[in-house]
Amino acid sequence: MHRGVNICNPYVPSMGVDVLYHVGLATDTTDLKKQFGDVKFVIMGGSPKRMKKIAEILLKELDIQLPCGTGLANIACTTDRYEMYKVGPILSVSHGMGIPSISILLHEMAKLLYHAGCQDVRFIRLGTCGGIGLEPGSVVITTSCLDCAFNDYFQLVRFASFVFFVGSHLLHFLTVMSILLQKILGKTVRRPAHLDEHFVKELIETARSMKLDFNVVSGKTMCADDFYEEQGRLDGAICEYTEEEKMAFLKKAYDSGVRNLEMESLGFAAFCQHLKIKAAVICVTLVNRLVSDQISTPVDVLHAWQERPLEILINYIKKQM
Amino acid sequence: MHRGVNICNPYVPSMGVDVLYHVGLATDTTDLKKQFGDVKFVIMGGSPKRMKKIAEILLKELDIQLPCGTGLANIACTTDRYEMYKVGPILSVSHGMGIPSISILLHEMAKLLYHAGCQDVRFIRLGTCGGIGLEPGSVVITTSCLDCAFNDYFQLVRFASFVFFVGSHLLHFLTVMSILLQKILGKTVRRPAHLDEHFVKELIETARSMKLDFNVVSGKTMCADDFYEEQGRLDGAICEYTEEEKMAFLKKAYDSGVRNLEMESLGFAAFCQHLKIKAAVICVTLVNRLVSDQISTPVDVLHAWQERPLEILINYIKKQM
Repeated sequence: MHRGVNICNPYVPSMGVDVLYHVGLATDTTDLKKQFGDVKFVIMGGSPKRMKKIAEILLKELDIQLPCGTGLANIACTTDRYEMYKVGPILSVSHGMGIPSISILLHEMAKLLYHAGCQDVRFIRLGTCGGIGLEPGSVVITTSCLDCAFNDYFQLVRFASFVFFVGSHLLHFLTVMSILLQKILGKTVRRPAHLDEHFVKELIETARSMKLDFNVVSGKTMCADDFYEEQGRLDGAICEYTEEEKMAFLKKAYDSGVRNLEMESLGFAAFCQHLKIKAAVICVTLVNRLVSDQISTPVDVLHAWQERPLEILINYIKKQM
Repeated sequence: MHRGVNICNPYVPSMGVDVLYHVGLATDTTDLKKQFGDVKFVIMGGSPKRMKKIAEILLKELDIQLPCGTGLANIACTTDRYEMYKVGPILSVSHGMGIPSISILLHEMAKLLYHAGCQDVRFIRLGTCGGIGLEPGSVVITTSCLDCAFNDYFQLVRFASFVFFVGSHLLHFLTVMSILLQKILGKTVRRPAHLDEHFVKELIETARSMKLDFNVVSGKTMCADDFYEEQGRLDGAICEYTEEEKMAFLKKAYDSGVRNLEMESLGFAAFCQHLKIKAAVICVTLVNRLVSDQISTPVDVLHAWQERPLEILINYIKKQM
């Protein structure tokens, strides 16, 4: 049974050098196997500061000693697209906001771990989100992902080409040319976006076994391509629906089992499923969308809440290590 | 004639406080009119370091004196989602990667300028991109935007609700309840994504009037939701097409007038057109996609190239001030 990180690209193995541009690494400048070969967990979250904080907490909680005279350093420091920290077998990486942003990171992380020959790796997104019908500060462990039209698959546009060679030769400006007729159509590719059921169950059980002073629920996560309009917020620069329509939308989402809204889970789940990477999403809700659209909780409270998904994950990781 | 920054949301004017969460500002904690009322140009780009560098260059080039004992400071410093700098009437703001990320910023910037009562504001995206058939380091001034299926409009999913009240009352657990039947369907909204023709023409003329040691062209810009697959790269973790199909796709794009590919222009153009904000996109190409997918140019050369779009814009701004 192959347990390594697979990629799904016949061209990569024969590339002389692979530049992982957005994380500032390359196969010819870093010994990826040596530096990253032991990685078992990749933790991702939107904010670089939060991912650094997470790395600092992991260091303490897992009692990992850095060599004397060293401290945590951003591995992706030659770029400022993402930040990446390594704590033993764990990478803590920021992914920015939205599916396109996390998608770039996912491609480069999968290639990084593939080049490094990593085995049995799990990807976990620890995020912030809007909750539906939950007290702000609650944690949602995602069971499955939907888009804002309630579809449970991820869509991307991919060109399809049909190339016809016309066999005749035409005299044109005294040169013989072969004519290439091309028709290329953008076609929508749908990818299922299921998270690893067993892994999700383990995380839910881990949370249940802990004495937590906050609410943890499992439920569906709705993933939007925008913070304001697709999520039905009334406080964007553009809002072309009524408060009643917004509430009906959120109610419908709630009735479908959706407990939170964010902006990356669907692309994250689809990518990981495609490459058979075990993945999970744990998010803390910063607002109850049935009550408010605006996030007006004091910053220090928000920061404290943001550590909650990590509390559960650390407990899980400790059991695995 | 109203020349202020409009928003398209009847709910915002009556909000007591408006928290612009991702830029870390709010109407009750900052006097937006006083701090931002003079803004005329909002320059946006993906990378926070680059946007700081742009602010530093603007300071020098426009000979703007900061009060003694002060330096440039990130206005959005309470968050790490974006960075924002102010140089006289110019804001230089980072937008991250992808339409969802820039979309959040656009909503909050439009509201910021609306609250501040700004007039005659222009939005300019200064970006990096992949070029088609252009020597790397060339600059493309966008004439119009397409998605990867060659559509010239932006699409977002918006719920549509049809709420039917059933007039009857049913006895249920001894309580009388009214039943609300709801049917909410995600529907795709299409928004035209045209840039301001006159503004684009002015920028092209500005570039033409300058003695530049690099290539400047105008052309269509293709906007993808992903760096690897939608752009037909052969070096992602997933690649399910052949090199021939990739080349046919790029050739078709070139023949349609596309000169570069990036990840924000379509959402940027559609948002600005919807709110009647004059907007333009100027990007430098880091790679010629007909030759390579990988960006392997040395970092210092890339950094030098990244200042090229700004050179043109500064010349334009100087003429306006």
